[in-house]
Amino acid sequence: MSDNGQRPRRARDLGIVVGTLPTGRHNALTDVPGVRVGHTTIVDAPRLHTGVTAIVPDALDPDRRSLPCGLFVGNGFGKLVGATQVAELGAIETPILLTATLSAFRAADALVTHVLARPGHEETRTLNPVVGETNDGRLSDIRARPVAESHVLAALDGATSGPPDEGCVGAGTGTMALGFKGGVGTSSRLVEGWTVGALVQSNFSGTLTVCGVPIPADAAGEPATSAGEPDGNSCMIVVATDAPLDARQLGRVARRAVFAMARVGSDFAGGSGDYALAFSTPGAPPSGTTSDLPARRVDDRDLDPVFAATMDAVEEALLNSLLTATTTVGHRGTALAVPHDLVLRRLRAAGVLPQPSAGTPAS
Amino acid sequence: MSDNGQRPRRARDLGIVVGTLPTGRHNALTDVPGVRVGHTTIVDAPRLHTGVTAIVPDALDPDRRSLPCGLFVGNGFGKLVGATQVAELGAIETPILLTATLSAFRAADALVTHVLARPGHEETRTLNPVVGETNDGRLSDIRARPVAESHVLAALDGATSGPPDEGCVGAGTGTMALGFKGGVGTSSRLVEGWTVGALVQSNFSGTLTVCGVPIPADAAGEPATSAGEPDGNSCMIVVATDAPLDARQLGRVARRAVFAMARVGSDFAGGSGDYALAFSTPGAPPSGTTSDLPARRVDDRDLDPVFAATMDAVEEALLNSLLTATTTVGHRGTALAVPHDLVLRRLRAAGVLPQPSAGTPAS
Amino acid sequence: MSDNGQRPRRARDLGIVVGTLPTGRHNALTDVPGVRVGHTTIVDAPRLHTGVTAIVPDALDPDRRSLPCGLFVGNGFGKLVGATQVAELGAIETPILLTATLSAFRAADALVTHVLARPGHEETRTLNPVVGETNDGRLSDIRARPVAESHVLAALDGATSGPPDEGCVGAGTGTMALGFKGGVGTSSRLVEGWTVGALVQSNFSGTLTVCGVPIPADAAGEPATSAGEPDGNSCMIVVATDAPLDARQLGRVARRAVFAMARVGSDFAGGSGDYALAFSTPGAPPSGTTSDLPARRVDDRDLDPVFAATMDAVEEALLNSLLTATTTVGHRGTALAVPHDLVLRRLRAAGVLPQPSAGTPAS
Amino acid sequence: MSDNGQRPRRARDLGIVVGTLPTGRHNALTDVPGVRVGHTTIVDAPRLHTGVTAIVPDALDPDRRSLPCGLFVGNGFGKLVGATQVAELGAIETPILLTATLSAFRAADALVTHVLARPGHEETRTLNPVVGETNDGRLSDIRARPVAESHVLAALDGATSGPPDEGCVGAGTGTMALGFKGGVGTSSRLVEGWTVGALVQSNFSGTLTVCGVPIPADAAGEPATSAGEPDGNSCMIVVATDAPLDARQLGRVARRAVFAMARVGSDFAGGSGDYALAFSTPGAPPSGTTSDLPARRVDDRDLDPVFAATMDAVEEALLNSLLTATTTVGHRGTALAVPHDLVLRRLRAAGVLPQPSAGTPAS
Repeated sequence: MSDNGQRPRRARDLGIVVGTLPTGRHNALTDVPGVRVGHTTIVDAPRLHTGVTAIVPDALDPDRRSLPCGLFVGNGFGKLVGATQVAELGAIETPILLTATLSAFRAADALVTHVLARPGHEETRTLNPVVGETNDGRLSDIRARPVAESHVLAALDGATSGPPDEGCVGAGTGTMALGFKGGVGTSSRLVEGWTVGALVQSNFSGTLTVCGVPIPADAAGEPATSAGEPDGNSCMIVVATDAPLDARQLGRVARRAVFAMARVGSDFAGGSGDYALAFSTPGAPPSGTTSDLPARRVDDRDLDPVFAATMDAVEEALLNSLLTATTTVGHRGTALAVPHDLVLRRLRAAGVLPQPSAGTPAS
Repeated sequence: MSDNGQRPRRARDLGIVVGTLPTGRHNALTDVPGVRVGHTTIVDAPRLHTGVTAIVPDALDPDRRSLPCGLFVGNGFGKLVGATQVAELGAIETPILLTATLSAFRAADALVTHVLARPGHEETRTLNPVVGETNDGRLSDIRARPVAESHVLAALDGATSGPPDEGCVGAGTGTMALGFKGGVGTSSRLVEGWTVGALVQSNFSGTLTVCGVPIPADAAGEPATSAGEPDGNSCMIVVATDAPLDARQLGRVARRAVFAMARVGSDFAGGSGDYALAFSTPGAPPSGTTSDLPARRVDDRDLDPVFAATMDAVEEALLNSLLTATTTVGHRGTALAVPHDLVLRRLRAAGVLPQPSAGTPAS
Repeated sequence: MSDNGQRPRRARDLGIVVGTLPTGRHNALTDVPGVRVGHTTIVDAPRLHTGVTAIVPDALDPDRRSLPCGLFVGNGFGKLVGATQVAELGAIETPILLTATLSAFRAADALVTHVLARPGHEETRTLNPVVGETNDGRLSDIRARPVAESHVLAALDGATSGPPDEGCVGAGTGTMALGFKGGVGTSSRLVEGWTVGALVQSNFSGTLTVCGVPIPADAAGEPATSAGEPDGNSCMIVVATDAPLDARQLGRVARRAVFAMARVGSDFAGGSGDYALAFSTPGAPPSGTTSDLPARRVDDRDLDPVFAATMDAVEEALLNSLLTATTTVGHRGTALAVPHDLVLRRLRAAGVLPQPSAGTPAS
Repeated sequence: MSDNGQRPRRARDLGIVVGTLPTGRHNALTDVPGVRVGHTTIVDAPRLHTGVTAIVPDALDPDRRSLPCGLFVGNGFGKLVGATQVAELGAIETPILLTATLSAFRAADALVTHVLARPGHEETRTLNPVVGETNDGRLSDIRARPVAESHVLAALDGATSGPPDEGCVGAGTGTMALGFKGGVGTSSRLVEGWTVGALVQSNFSGTLTVCGVPIPADAAGEPATSAGEPDGNSCMIVVATDAPLDARQLGRVARRAVFAMARVGSDFAGGSGDYALAFSTPGAPPSGTTSDLPARRVDDRDLDPVFAATMDAVEEALLNSLLTATTTVGHRGTALAVPHDLVLRRLRAAGVLPQPSAGTPAS
């Protein structure tokens, strides 16, 4: 999905580091043990730029039917499927899907297909599929609802524990953020012996801000997009951790995930569906369908490091989603990739990054 | 759907009256001007007993894209589609569908199809379909997900303003409640010049209670069901009114709708998804997609009559849903209709109904 | 506070039994091990009829600074002090007080005094006092705010583990409910090896309903009150249990507590502040200020018996609050005690209680 | 409260401008017509540094008993008095007070005294006082609860419509924020013909960030505080506007107010009670005690400018609260004022502010 292999893909490849906590091995959601990510990317340029992203916790198996999960709705102009049961039982029962707004329901139906067909689900007659969505209706013909069951199953079946693709992939294929092309991004942090990972689909308005330095889209010299204003969008954030948190605590984590959007310049517009789901992998004992009680406990007084890790991981995941995305000519306009050299120049001018020594390439 | 035309269908046909407020013309949700109801019933006995019920507010049209709506989640073990946006914007943008749990997502997708195809929606790229669900997995093969787009469109297109069918129709075809066969029921009240209507799909546990008189299922002399315990169920309640209430006030109405379930003997079991949606028809001015501000206002101090009308209408709708349902031999068991004569005997013994005079038929 | 020692005080003394579950030893909140109740009753007839009720969990001590707690706001027309922190941390840090509306803040301040003076609190600089309230402004001169710190400390210091006084005591001294004199009531249930206790202060409108049988206030032959309509009231419900539930689960319990108000005929008027707090005594390990993770766990699928016990205990506590209250001539009117013989006659007529055999006293 | 009259007091005095929207006349909450602010500052150095701040909407009068209000709880580790009724009725009935944590209840009681004594409240028997709080327990002896009724009445009675004092006044007298001395700050914006004002009491952790430029407390060359970590704190934010918003919309505004804390570097620690209240002055018609329906309406689609104005006003109010605060030697430590020259040097180095021309004083 990258330009040509030469484009540095991620914030850290450009020398941009958020916070001081160490990252996991891949600096990705998949650093949380047992969490896999898969994408199906649907492109039929210029009309279709959409897809599906699947977050698959291996801990969900016939012996463990649910994992503790918290939800925060920062701005509910969105169609998140499964919200009320997550809130009631404090748990997810399925992998989490991300896709385009009008395709969320077919995706949820396909997720039901996927789970019902799995071993141990022969008698399952109730299930709460969780599907987040974002509006890619500028770059993609969203009314066509091109996401089919096969796309969803492919994302689920193809989910791996390696470094996930970022940028114009899966649910991020057709998104726009902060005046540039958005996409999927991910990052992780290690804290107190635990891993906190975040994966985002960026698709919201505001002024791109990198380490405090604003990078307005019009600074790119040419209009960053010809796509006009989005008529509905969203930022779905998924946080996973192996810290043994219960659902209430994960709800507190989810709130911080949305708060972190401010750091990259979100204007929290009223039409943006800004949601965060946070789940914990070690939580439920084998017999518990709906319990959110981990075997080991974390006191609320000890959550601040987890909160900090969450906010840093989300901020960097958001930056990665833009930095790795590539210029896209779409259904009703074009969205330009954020120019890396512009970002670097601005960060150097602000003293956030050092001036390049003589002979160093600009980016 | 009735037994044979001889079975009295509704509470009032049996002399059972809830409260003292007058009803609307049809004693139904459709008494609220501009609210229509349609059902698609899917029966392939004994395997399939399911369907779709559509509540269609005519006020949703190209000039008025949303209506004020409140939501209360009494117990969130359910898959209500559209919840977070209803909460955020205080509004519905589409008709409301009710169907079986695992079919909710296909129904939502079909509802998107329906709205996108309507005049004035040629440019619509975001939409929040609202679909409630209930688990009919004892009497119907819920895993088969038999609800197709055509069923949904038929329910929407066939919605009428007349008295809705009740009992084993639409989303109530395969439900069980309070130990007997449940179904769809409706009722209405007139209060302060306004109409308050309710429509329910009953599918929850407890002890049937009619006007305070308990009618345990085992009092029927034979087991009322051979279907065992439900493995997931729900009571979706839809309230409509032409009182000009805003979303916050409608949320207060929705809470009372769920509270009224106690009156018919619900045990509020943890596995029952008990939700109420309440919407107001006169609310939004033509230009407002998401506004919930009616032109005329009702002070919160004047809401008590609306609350009372809501509770009475929901109680009677729940009774109607059972009294009009008929014995159903289903996929994994049988559910008996509540015997009218048993109800009448009990109510007479308790003095709630008068003793029949000599020569009066028993029921 | 009883009439003269001859008036049977509680529902069970009159033969009225709610549900089939066994009660604890005292059929009271204090059956939950380590939960004590104390009252300070303030009467200066006819002007003052008010007081303070304290629920004191012994488990709160220097080694255990909080207990898991859930909250449900059935109707938030009330001034519950401490709500947002209970929701955030899922815990209480102090005993729970109940008192009159305009005295709630002085009571909260006095509760701070009480806790700060306790061993182990020498360094405490933050504290979340929890105080529920109800409006006794018809029978008592509520504007006088007669509750002083000494009254609060007396209720806390005098709390005992025996059977609590009921009726016109403590926070129930000046309340009215369902057209009669209300008050404090309590009840308990044993279920699955645990105890569930409830204590209520009844002060809301509707039609008194006992075991399904309505007993309108005007059936008493004379107006049951001359006090007119309350201009604000509340039903505070406190549930305690030794079942090891976490805060989310206790929130589910609290919801059922409010739902049970429907069983005794509450009309859920908009001006009634209907709240339930539910806390668990064994929950927090010694070191945890804010944790809500019990050592032992209850699966959500196993909560239904706890829900049933809660609803039965609340219903009977509400009945006890009225049946034990006595006629009160107050500041701006009089409230009559519900006549026991009327209740019994109605229940016998409805077949809920057997006809008295010859020679049995009427009540 | 200022150093000596030479210290520039506010962000704009230093050349620091947040956003592009114009401010009101005073760049303060009091720019909203009919909103007054008063402080009572209690200092008995070094032991006591605390106080009361009152926000008084003139629109609350005998003819208009409530104003539409929304609430967002960003992190509920706080003791906000009055929360549940604000949520239920979408309205405030009293001025809003801010004070120290353990004094919140005496302040609420004093607020009741104040309102009951006002003309038109001779028959008032229920009232929902709204009091936010923050923990000043490092710089002040919070356990002493020095705030008396007279202090509260003085703040209410002394409230004026002019530019409010900022920094170490009222409820901000003893607060610390972002490693420096915090306090009260205020700002306003003009947008779409309306005024949006914000007032904050800053008392939370993180890294001070001004226009994106981090200014860590340890950059001051000496420890900015010797007070150690707060053991509980809060950021109460009050937003007022004359835009005719209803309670649901004001809740959306309140959410953005908390989100704006991220812009100045809040780490959203778990022990910080972060709340925002947003109220609208023109809302309720004369007869409505609890209505939140304004005569004129704002469509949700038109709220983005209000959201932007809110976030900018809150950000600048937070900066003002620190920039105007002065070094305070307190009960258990010292908090240093943020050095203006340090801020300016950093902003100039980052290119946010221009380099001073020769001969210009450093700050």
